[in-house]
This record gives sequence, structure tokens and C-alpha cells, in this order.
Amino acid sequence: MGDKIYRVDMNTLSYSIEDVPSDWLGLGGRGLTSTIIAKEVDPECHPLGPNNKMVFAPGLLSGTSAANSGRNSLGAKSPLTGGIKESNVGGTSAGIFSKLGVKALIIEGIPQDESKFYQLHVTKEKVEFIEVPELVGKDNYEVLDTMLEKYDKKVAVMSIGRPGENCMLTANVSVKDPQGKLRSHGRGGLGAVMGSKKIKCITVDAEKYKEVTIADPEKFKAASKIFTQALQKNPISGEGLPAYGTNVLVNIINEAGGLPTRNFRAGKYEFAENICGETMAEIINSRDGKTTHACHAGCVIQCSQVYNDKENNYLTSGFEYEMIWAFGANLGIKDLDQIAKIDALMDDLGLDAIETGVALGLAVDAGILEYGDGEKAYSLIADDLANATPLGRIIGSGTEILGKIYGLVRVPTVKGQAIPAYEPRAIKGQGVTYVTSPMGADHTAGYAVATNILNSGGFVDPLKKDGQVELSRNLQIATAAVDSTGMCIFVAFPALDEPECLPALIDMINARFGINLTGDDVTNLGKSILKLEKEFNDKAGLTKADDRIPEFMKYEKLPPHNTIWDFTNEEIDAFWDF
Amino acid sequence: MGDKIYRVDMNTLSYSIEDVPSDWLGLGGRGLTSTIIAKEVDPECHPLGPNNKMVFAPGLLSGTSAANSGRNSLGAKSPLTGGIKESNVGGTSAGIFSKLGVKALIIEGIPQDESKFYQLHVTKEKVEFIEVPELVGKDNYEVLDTMLEKYDKKVAVMSIGRPGENCMLTANVSVKDPQGKLRSHGRGGLGAVMGSKKIKCITVDAEKYKEVTIADPEKFKAASKIFTQALQKNPISGEGLPAYGTNVLVNIINEAGGLPTRNFRAGKYEFAENICGETMAEIINSRDGKTTHACHAGCVIQCSQVYNDKENNYLTSGFEYEMIWAFGANLGIKDLDQIAKIDALMDDLGLDAIETGVALGLAVDAGILEYGDGEKAYSLIADDLANATPLGRIIGSGTEILGKIYGLVRVPTVKGQAIPAYEPRAIKGQGVTYVTSPMGADHTAGYAVATNILNSGGFVDPLKKDGQVELSRNLQIATAAVDSTGMCIFVAFPALDEPECLPALIDMINARFGINLTGDDVTNLGKSILKLEKEFNDKAGLTKADDRIPEFMKYEKLPPHNTIWDFTNEEIDAFWDF
Repeated sequence: MGDKIYRVDMNTLSYSIEDVPSDWLGLGGRGLTSTIIAKEVDPECHPLGPNNKMVFAPGLLSGTSAANSGRNSLGAKSPLTGGIKESNVGGTSAGIFSKLGVKALIIEGIPQDESKFYQLHVTKEKVEFIEVPELVGKDNYEVLDTMLEKYDKKVAVMSIGRPGENCMLTANVSVKDPQGKLRSHGRGGLGAVMGSKKIKCITVDAEKYKEVTIADPEKFKAASKIFTQALQKNPISGEGLPAYGTNVLVNIINEAGGLPTRNFRAGKYEFAENICGETMAEIINSRDGKTTHACHAGCVIQCSQVYNDKENNYLTSGFEYEMIWAFGANLGIKDLDQIAKIDALMDDLGLDAIETGVALGLAVDAGILEYGDGEKAYSLIADDLANATPLGRIIGSGTEILGKIYGLVRVPTVKGQAIPAYEPRAIKGQGVTYVTSPMGADHTAGYAVATNILNSGGFVDPLKKDGQVELSRNLQIATAAVDSTGMCIFVAFPALDEPECLPALIDMINARFGINLTGDDVTNLGKSILKLEKEFNDKAGLTKADDRIPEFMKYEKLPPHNTIWDFTNEEIDAFWDF
Repeated sequence: MGDKIYRVDMNTLSYSIEDVPSDWLGLGGRGLTSTIIAKEVDPECHPLGPNNKMVFAPGLLSGTSAANSGRNSLGAKSPLTGGIKESNVGGTSAGIFSKLGVKALIIEGIPQDESKFYQLHVTKEKVEFIEVPELVGKDNYEVLDTMLEKYDKKVAVMSIGRPGENCMLTANVSVKDPQGKLRSHGRGGLGAVMGSKKIKCITVDAEKYKEVTIADPEKFKAASKIFTQALQKNPISGEGLPAYGTNVLVNIINEAGGLPTRNFRAGKYEFAENICGETMAEIINSRDGKTTHACHAGCVIQCSQVYNDKENNYLTSGFEYEMIWAFGANLGIKDLDQIAKIDALMDDLGLDAIETGVALGLAVDAGILEYGDGEKAYSLIADDLANATPLGRIIGSGTEILGKIYGLVRVPTVKGQAIPAYEPRAIKGQGVTYVTSPMGADHTAGYAVATNILNSGGFVDPLKKDGQVELSRNLQIATAAVDSTGMCIFVAFPALDEPECLPALIDMINARFGINLTGDDVTNLGKSILKLEKEFNDKAGLTKADDRIPEFMKYEKLPPHNTIWDFTNEEIDAFWDF
């Protein structure tokens, strides 16, 4: 294959296009980003200093016709967690990188002149460094519009808004989706790393790309068909998610008593009905929106949507459960339109919805705003955070730092990263994922909600400790492998429940590259990725003491089940016995 | 001996007076605080949560007539470093605790009603919990004056100002000195721990105390005489420090190229002459101030002073080198009166001069103020920090957090604590102490400046790596032991250079308690304290990666010597091979 490694040095504003080292040939997505970061980045380096690197890598199946294979991984040492980070995204970048033959884009160094921001334009033949003074201080949509005027409409665009320029830890890297809207490499403050490297946006040429080569097209086609059918027949990926989007979860998780409410003070939200997926679908339908929408080409789940305002004008898309929870139950807002307006704002600015929403929930404890005050929440983001006022800087630094600034104890983070929309005390398998994942509190790293709540892959009682460590371990191993394929996390449901799904996925990889992976190979890949990431974190200074739930969850009972986090340290530390 | 452990539970507002466990009998000061913290505090607990404890313990010789024995130790898990902390102070508390028979005061828990602040009044027989609504929002001098009206003038007072109430990480615990001025348990954010426990002040009754009993008064008297003479004949403790105070160091360290200037961008300050000890002594003498002043009873060094304003009115005292450096060379201010005015303000508020000054130096990089703008620096503390505005909260959170909030890379901290007034790249032995001390960057933990610059204890070239790890190790071991005696750090100079000094110190301890310690016993005590503290930190999640200099010092040359920090990780990690 003609894939190459594209390597950019921001210090010298130079690049090289390199052959792929033999031991990276079989890697993609998270497997490749974590391998490169672990090999090339000093774990002790400052995440915003000259020795950190950013690595973009499409998944192994990205660019093919395989359903849901359009995820792109971004890796770096995270300024939020202090450990290794991989954050993957839909949008168009994975497919375009793959079709252009970019196995990975590695970005090193920091410009000597820190007063300028650059656009990197990646084509088959070269990387251009373009000064973009006119885009400094602008946000994602203006950057996107500027690039769409300049290039073919299919150009891939990755950009940061003002929070990224300001190196805020809530800043994400935003990516153009097929409809010209935005998706996000959301977590870990990777937008700050891009800002530290003085890169305002990266564009990837989509004019000269070719379809990716498939070693065995017949085999690929057959496996792809089985895989797609498995996705479609599974009740979660085939029905629930398409009908209500990820927001189908509000009622389910609320019913289970695991919807973190008002900064993790309860597991049920009395206004869940106002913000749930069913209500959202009604609103969307009544306003000529779209309840289904693909974040990347080839998606058959289409869990995204187009959400219009009361005048039936476009308001936002990619309006996800995590966002709706973070500003809904967690911040006590019950007006979905208000949350949608904040969602659109945060897309434009390029902010991690979870980190920002949880930080605002904690900001209530700090006396900065009151629960349910959506206007104030909007203004804190639009006026303070975007303009980097001192208060905006505080919120933009995320939950952990905000907690330190105000001397707060009830700070819902693991490894410095905010806990997402599933209460660890009520959905304990998910809590095990939060504390053990090398990524910090991350719901996608091992989605135990599937088996704790959705009866996917069997059932493990969410309120009890039994079996949770094993469940999370198996899911995290599988997820690390899946994150290397370019597949979206929601293939987990058919993979857990439809016996033909995983073999078909492996067959597609084999057919694509002309290799012969077995199921064991895939499991071993997942294990080796996790161990590699753990080893990086160990060297970076993370320890068992970082594999811990916030202390207050150990002594504060969560209504309605009145459960606490009751794992011993030894039970948690046993996670790594594999 | 009739010494007791006084144990206070803020959760239940109750106390107990307990016998001293046998294995604590031979411990005092840092040895005792670190032992109790290591035994009773979960290293993984939140430092501001209900499971942290504060432990006050006077030194073994405190309360006796031994010269310079009036240091009191305060221990806790530090909210600034995340590790164990001991910070000792002069003032009157050590002597009064000892004479009252309080071996240690342990404070646990947090009140259920978090809306109130308390005064703890400790007498021989009991501990009173007094609500002090009238003192909430007040600063140290008002608290002190209130207590001096209420009690005998000799009452010991330990208090926090508004920064401590607000749980800021720059907050210290202030202690009344013999003249009714203030000294500080300065480092590690211990004022925030006191604030989290809702304690505004602690008073210790001085009416009913007795002189401490001495097992062998004759032997004590003889040893004490030798010890005092050693202090007086040593050129540093007997001449330099009395004449110019600690600020004698400005010219010396500047001359050596190791005075950190403008946030650690150079080792020489062009206005050193304006702020040096010699200039200060001239100013003091011209304004009827005092160039010598004892921070605690029995001090024969008297490195403190009384600094008057231009109208010859009292402005400040305890006006130390670290303070003058932090706001002078580090922040580019050259007007000593302006620095003195800030010093007085910070005493009243209860702020760590090093942490606050270094944070402000970094704030220049963040665009918050400009070098040399003393008016603005004053206002940022008096208006913003004191009133806990968002900007004040940022500065009050200290250097490390400020760096994270603004995405800065040149952040001069170790283990989250600001580096003091000696440049690690130019005084490398001191740098070894910064990176290896369990306390975080702390100049007093192993004062290698003595041997690198002052030719005390021999000479080790400050610009070279050779011998520095051994030097720092030996000093840190000795210091851990000395910090247990109640002795001030400046006994280090005669202890290093006058052969009769250390034996006399050990003889005093033996005579006080009727025991038979040898020099080896003292060395072993120092070693065991360091190892105990290290073990706590390991369990708290600190690792080798925390024993590191800020990365920028590894690649940025420091003028005028143009040296970098060139130790390998292995060389530093070898510190712990003992």
C-alpha cells in the first residue's frame, strides 16, 4: 500500500513524507496514535510545550465502504489528564486521510515566533504552512466557511475556536461533517495542544484522493453486507438510536436512577421528561427538523439529528445525550431549546460539552450561577469563556481546576477529567471504566452501561460490585481494538449481541489488507493498546491513586438507591491483572 | 512527663485529651507531625475534605531556654502539592504549647454546618469551641487584636485571613510573635486546610503554663551555653544575618548569578542594589527602625527587623529575603517601600509570600500585569485576591494552577509548589532539594546554598552537577532531624562549621528528656522522617515524575552563566538510595 506518514515540524515550519515503519503497518486509529505517542513523546514533557506531539490517524477501515467506519483518532499527551489521550470523531477527515494515503499525520514542535497562527494544508504531495492572521480570534464556523470558499467543498477541515487559541483545557478540535456542520475530538483538552502549536486549522485536500485499495473485494463485500445487516437488526443500533438519537438514554438512565443530577447529588432528574429523546423527537418533527442524520459517510445508525428553532430555522445538530445531560440534569436546565442554543454556541467555539457542562455544574457550588439559569450559563460561555475574561478562564479550565480554585471537595473528575452522564454509584460497571481507563473518566472507553442497563451482552446488576471489574475490562479491551478500526462505538451493541457481527468486522479488516487476523488477535491488540497506554501514564507520573473515584462518592449516598461507591482499592487495582 | 495529645473533632465539636503513645514520646516538631499524618490520614483523601487532619507540634526543645528553639510545626496533607506537608514557624506558639504540656494538637473533621467559623481556645484542661461570626471576613490583625483584648497578652494566636477562609492555595496560617506581629506557617496552602475545617483562629492559654521540666538541668545549661556561643561565633549566624537579616542574600545570590529574575528568565537583577540587605539596613537606620528583631523568644540570631515608612512609622517586620526577591527581582519591582507595603498587606491577609509572588511573576506572562508595576501588584492582592474576585481567585490559587488556567509552559513549580529565590540552573544543589524534597520546591528542606554559595560545610561548585545529590541528601536528612527539635533552620550554619555545635544540640535534647541519643540516632531520625514522608507521597500518587524540575529549565539557558538543568532522571532518582 502506498500509505505514508506525514510529519510536520512547527518549530522549523517544515515537513517530511515518510514510509510507514513495518511495525505500524497493521495499526490504525487509536492503536496507531497511542503507539506513536508512546514511542515518540517523553511522558514527562509539558503537554503544551515543544516536546508534545499531536497524531491524527484514521481507522483501519476508514475510507472503505464499511458501515460506520468513518472515525478519525487524535492522540497526544493530554493537558487535562496529564496522561496519554486518544479522542476519536466522525466527520469527513478519516475517509479523506485514508483515501489520500495518509496513514498518520504527526505534528511536532512549536513555532519560534509565537505571535502567529497557521493553517496547515495537507495534499498528496506536500504540506503547506499558511499564515492566517485574518482567522485569529475567530471561531469554527468562520474558519470552516473560509476554507470552503477556498477549496473544493469536500475538503476536510479540522479547527479550533478561541478557547483552543487560548489553550483552555475545555477546548476541543472540531471537524467538518458531511453536511458542513461540526463534530468534535471532544475530550482531554486537545484543542489546547493544537493552540499551543499555533495551528488554527488543518485542511486535507479531497480533490486528488482515490478510493482505498481492497486486497480481496469480494470477501470484503460479503462481510460488509453481514456487518451492515447486524447493525440494522440489533434493537439498539437498528431502532433505538435511529429513532431518538443518543438522547434515547435520558429516560432510560433516569429510570435506572443513574442520571447525575445537580452536580452528582442525585440519580433522578424531575424534569427528565422535558429533555428526553422522545420529547426531542416530537419537537424535531413538529419543526421540520431531522431525527436521523449521519455524522460521517456510510453510517447506517444515524443517531444524530437536525434540531430547528421555533421558527423552523436550523439551530443545531449533533445534539447528543451527553450535552443534553450536562446542561440539563446536571445544571438543572429544563428547556431543550435553551440547551440547543448553548450546543450551537459550543460547536462554534469548540468546547468539550462534558467538561464545560460539568464545570458549570460545579460552578453552582462556587456561587457563580444558580441551577436552571440557562441564560447565565449561555452568557458565561459566550461572553466570559469565549473572551477569556478571568471568570471565563476559570470555567474554561474545566472541572478539576475550577474545584481547586474555589476549594471545593465535591469535584466529579477522574484523572482530572469530568465524569460523564452515568453515575458511578448507580451504574458501577461504568464507574469502573471511569477510574481505570487510561483516558480518565470516559464513558466510551468501556461502555458498561450496555450490560448494566441495556441488557446488551447479558446483564450485570448495576447497583452491585459483582462482576463489574471483569465486565469493564472486557469492554475496554474490545473498545481499544474497535477504536483502531475506525468504527463508531455503537457497533458495540451488535458486536455484543449478534454472533455474526464481530467475525464480519474481522473479515472486512482481513479482506482490506489481505491478512488473516483471528478473534484472538483482535483481543490481543486491544490488550496491548491498553497496556501501552497504561505504561505511558505510569511514566508520566500517574499511579494507582489516580485510578480512584472522587472521595465524596465513597461516603455520600446517592438517591434514589442510596448507594455509595464501595469498591476497595484492591478490587479496582485488580483491573490490570491481565 | 505530663505531656498530652489534644485531639479535636470539628465534625462533632468535641475533643479529647489523650496520653502520648509510647512510640511518639521521643518525637517533636516535624518528626511528630509527619508521623501522625502518615499514621492517621488516608494519603488518597481530598486535602480539603473531612478526612484530612491538621497537626500542630512544638519541637523537642521548644519551651526551654535553648537558643533558637521556638519553632512550631504544622502538618497536613497539602492541597497545593497533594503530598505530606510540614511547615514550621517562629512566634510564640511553640513555647506556649510546650509549657502547657501540649505535645500535639490534632484537628480532624469538618463541621456539619458549613456556614459558621470557630475559634478554638485551648487551655490545660479543655478545648472550647467558640463561634466567631464577628470575625468572618476579617484578616489577621483584627483577629489578633480581638484575642489580645479577650485574653492575657501572652496568649498564643494562630489565625487565617480571608484567603484562608476562601480555601485559597496561597493561604498560610499566621502566628503571633513576641511583639504582637505575625509569622507564618507559610507554605503548602495550610491556611486553606484550616479554612476547610472552619477554624478562624486557635488561641492557646498562656496564663497557666509552667516551665518545661528538664531531666538534667546542669547538663542542659552547660550544653546550651556551648550551643549559643557556636551560634554567635559563626560568621553567618553571628554576623551576616544579624546585620542585614535574611536579605543579606540579595547581593550574594545576585553576584552568583542565581537570583531568579523576571519569572526565572535570568540569574541577575539589574536593580539588586535597590533592594539588597545593605540598602535595607541603611533605610531602616535612617528611619528609626530596627535591624535586629527576634521572631521568637530566645533567638540569638535576630534576623528579622522592624521596617518603618518615610514618616518613621511602623510599616512591616519579618521582611524576609524570599519576600523581597519574590516581588523584587522576580516581579521587577525596585522600590523597597513598595515591597514592604505589600509585605504588610500579605501578613494581614495571611498569604505565602513565595507562592503569591511567583504566581504574580507568572501572571505577567499571562498578560495580567507588567513587570515593575508595584501598584498593580498591590491592588491585585488587596482588591482582587482579598475579595476573591475571579481574577483574585486565580492568583490566590498559586503558580501551578495559574499556569494551567493560562496555558503557560514556563511554570516554575515542583510538585505544584512555587520555586523559591535560588535558581536551580545556577545553584544546582538547591535544585536537587527542590525536586527531591517530599515538601515540593522548598528552600529550607535542604539548604544547599550553604555549601554551593556560602562556603559553609565546605564548597560544592554550584554550576556543576558533581556532588550535589549527596550534598542535598545529607542536608535534607539533617534538616528533617533539626525540624524536629524546634530549632530554626539557621542553626545549620554553625552546625556545619563549628564542630562543637551539633554535639551540644544533642546534649540539650538528652538533658531535657534524660535520654542518650547519639549523632547516629539523630541521622537515623532524619532518614526515617524523610522515608516516612516519601512513603506517604507515594501512596498519595506522587512518583518519580514529580521529582522533576520544570521542563523549560532543561532546554532554556539561564544568563549569565548560560547553564541548563542537566541532571538525568537516574541521577535524581538516586537521591533516594539510602
